[in-house]
Amino acid sequence: MNAVNIEKKLAQVSDYWQPTIVGELNQDFIKVVKFRGEFLWHHHENEDEMFLVIRGTMRMRFRDRDVLVGPGEFIIVPRGVEHMPVAEEEVHIVLIEPRTTLNTGNVRNERTRETLARI
Amino acid sequence: MNAVNIEKKLAQVSDYWQPTIVGELNQDFIKVVKFRGEFLWHHHENEDEMFLVIRGTMRMRFRDRDVLVGPGEFIIVPRGVEHMPVAEEEVHIVLIEPRTTLNTGNVRNERTRETLARI
Repeated sequence: MNAVNIEKKLAQVSDYWQPTIVGELNQDFIKVVKFRGEFLWHHHENEDEMFLVIRGTMRMRFRDRDVLVGPGEFIIVPRGVEHMPVAEEEVHIVLIEPRTTLNTGNVRNERTRETLARI
Repeated sequence: MNAVNIEKKLAQVSDYWQPTIVGELNQDFIKVVKFRGEFLWHHHENEDEMFLVIRGTMRMRFRDRDVLVGPGEFIIVPRGVEHMPVAEEEVHIVLIEPRTTLNTGNVRNERTRETLARI
């Protein structure tokens, strides 16, 4: 039961697109992730995901529109909804999602991260 | 599926100690709350709680020690652990906890909030 400094945790993450666990809350993991560029279209069959932006601006693409999410803002992507996170410049994100969530959802490819570090 | 600006939501909350729902994520509610002063000793039998500090400094009291939590930091209070949030100056908090969570946990008194607004 310690205070967790989000920026300090993010400073320990060097690889883009590598979600890293920083806390556990009921059935969820709290993760931090940095990225730049485009992810891929995917959805999660049974899991809602929360993206809280700490630094930079994320563009969450949906099939019918884009939503910009800036520092101090969050977006919740409901289960079943196709989405693709994009960032023109590096973004720092807190992700909150069930422990069962695979980063690439219904897709498995070279961007899938099966195992996650905890810091 | 919109971007939710946390500070703007907090600006709509005027009463201290009134958790207000700003999002839903799986089995959890995302809430914002402002407070100053002392809450009360309580615990939650079956629910872990996450407190993310947006503004100010919260002192989370446990029976054996205090933990200070500042802006950009969070603390997770595991189920069953007695705690009392305190703030010498006004703090702005994001709370993430199961929908079933009562603010005063195992205690019911004048500080209990049975119904929550959603903004």
